[in-house]
Amino acid sequence: MRAAIFEKPGSITVVDRPDPGIEQPTDAVVRVVLACVCGSDLWYYRGDSPFEAGAPIGHEFIGIIEETGSEVSTVSKGDLVIAPFAYSDGTCPHCLHGVQTACQNGGFFPVENGDGGQGEAIRVPLADGTLVKVPGSGYSDEMMASLLSLSDVMGTGHHAAKCARVKAGDTVAVVGDGAVGLSGVLAAKRLGAERIIALSRNPVRQDLAREFGATDIVEQRGDEATEAVMELTDGIGVDATLECVGTGQSVATAISIARPLSMVGYVGVPHGVEFPVEAMFFKNRGVLGGAAPARAYIPELLDDVLEGKINPGRVFDFKTDLDGIGEAYAAMDERRAIKSLIEVAG
Amino acid sequence: MRAAIFEKPGSITVVDRPDPGIEQPTDAVVRVVLACVCGSDLWYYRGDSPFEAGAPIGHEFIGIIEETGSEVSTVSKGDLVIAPFAYSDGTCPHCLHGVQTACQNGGFFPVENGDGGQGEAIRVPLADGTLVKVPGSGYSDEMMASLLSLSDVMGTGHHAAKCARVKAGDTVAVVGDGAVGLSGVLAAKRLGAERIIALSRNPVRQDLAREFGATDIVEQRGDEATEAVMELTDGIGVDATLECVGTGQSVATAISIARPLSMVGYVGVPHGVEFPVEAMFFKNRGVLGGAAPARAYIPELLDDVLEGKINPGRVFDFKTDLDGIGEAYAAMDERRAIKSLIEVAG
Repeated sequence: MRAAIFEKPGSITVVDRPDPGIEQPTDAVVRVVLACVCGSDLWYYRGDSPFEAGAPIGHEFIGIIEETGSEVSTVSKGDLVIAPFAYSDGTCPHCLHGVQTACQNGGFFPVENGDGGQGEAIRVPLADGTLVKVPGSGYSDEMMASLLSLSDVMGTGHHAAKCARVKAGDTVAVVGDGAVGLSGVLAAKRLGAERIIALSRNPVRQDLAREFGATDIVEQRGDEATEAVMELTDGIGVDATLECVGTGQSVATAISIARPLSMVGYVGVPHGVEFPVEAMFFKNRGVLGGAAPARAYIPELLDDVLEGKINPGRVFDFKTDLDGIGEAYAAMDERRAIKSLIEVAG
Repeated sequence: MRAAIFEKPGSITVVDRPDPGIEQPTDAVVRVVLACVCGSDLWYYRGDSPFEAGAPIGHEFIGIIEETGSEVSTVSKGDLVIAPFAYSDGTCPHCLHGVQTACQNGGFFPVENGDGGQGEAIRVPLADGTLVKVPGSGYSDEMMASLLSLSDVMGTGHHAAKCARVKAGDTVAVVGDGAVGLSGVLAAKRLGAERIIALSRNPVRQDLAREFGATDIVEQRGDEATEAVMELTDGIGVDATLECVGTGQSVATAISIARPLSMVGYVGVPHGVEFPVEAMFFKNRGVLGGAAPARAYIPELLDDVLEGKINPGRVFDFKTDLDGIGEAYAAMDERRAIKSLIEVAG
């Protein structure tokens, strides 16, 4: 099969690799239909994080079951399935607690010594706990893109909103206008937020934020952003804050606009972040977040996607095939694209 | 009147000061019956925090209303009242949100240019929002001590438990065996925790922790404490963690034993604390806490105290009168006492 690998910073290539097969009775092999590029893929692409040269890449994909191990019972050959970016058994105490990204027997894609999602096929461990079957077939490209978004970005935005404890009627702020931040806007709207302040200085992303439910846009950054949000909220701050970037400045801004006794849900993987302990303590501002248990959220989000209530696939504004994956990375790296979709199989 | 002042580190004295009077129509003057010493009073006592020489001190007291301003309507002369350690109007957005310690018009005792709670009388601003009337009279010394605990320490322990989201059936850990930590044990028990692990190496405090509901005691500190708690919880960690110390080590321990997707409620005022961002993010461990809105919690806790369901006044194990206040500080400083009570009026 053909699969993308990381060659060196700035260079993603497609090579021939052995077809994956069943190794454990709990495995499934998935023929990938759609994959995409994550903001976190850009770290190694940019040389910001170490990554093994020649290793397969990608952790967001949907596809068709090609083969299952003898102990797999919830999915079978021919099923369309969504894979969250982490695999998990679904039965350990952490999975039962709704945090599959801490599964005692799980891990993250690409599977160690195995394939990533940006290729024609992938072995998925713990298939029963990991994969979610999509009922029906013959979905439009638009619907397929929304299904793909449930593998990571929509679930991650939803996690930020849940960690921030968004509830009906809230005023919510979303820091970050990447695909996760935009998904966070959609998640907050879905959870009933009445007012959603999106922090964005990019007109294209502002438009999508508004389409997803943002009622106010703040273009400023740093202290000026804090002032703008405080002005919009009569000096009170927001009821719930979603931090979807992960830098020191974005986290500081998020905490500075959170009203006392409210939560900042943070899902931007922290890079150089130090929490401002005093600004948190003396205003009773909390933080909760981390690698989203996307698996936990797929069922409820899937229902809303299939019913057309939400259309999270709108974050994909760049489309190519597997051979064009280098350009898919470049477009996101250069911020020409919000998020790139890879049509792996027709 | 006579009132305690801070003379210099290690020296608390009692001096004559002018009687307080009504300055604003929303004021009340309270004749103090019982006061006590807070762990945070020890900071200036030990010279760890700056404090004005000669200034009055203390922020935990109960007493009898002596006089009220013309706009005060909820308390009147002769009422027994509990004062939380912060005064608040009860009507601003933050008060209505249950976080009176962020009141837009409030502040903390001692009132600026006014008296503290460790004296014979004190002017209380915003009396309607601040003070809670205790129904009835003729209470036992034991009951009066429990009423006094609602001014700070019991409400603070309760805040830690609420921020940690303690719920029925939970396994809870409490880091810190001071008066707040012990109150946290009691608060967790009251909220339905099934198993309560108290981290304490002091036999007297261990006994009180057990009396308050602790089911397990961990005497270790640092990494060994983490290991002990993880062993007690089959490697999972606890459902809710109360951090009641505020040092770097205690916060690190608290976060290390929190199960993924759980909260650490922290109320120990941070001294040299840095949150371990990666240990939090990659395990989805959250933190929330700060200066407790004791005022918000007094009504529900008061009911339980008056019904004899909880007896938080048990944390007072040293008793003296106003003239003995220096010894009250020394006993806590030297850890001879968990918490010192001052009988100001007979």
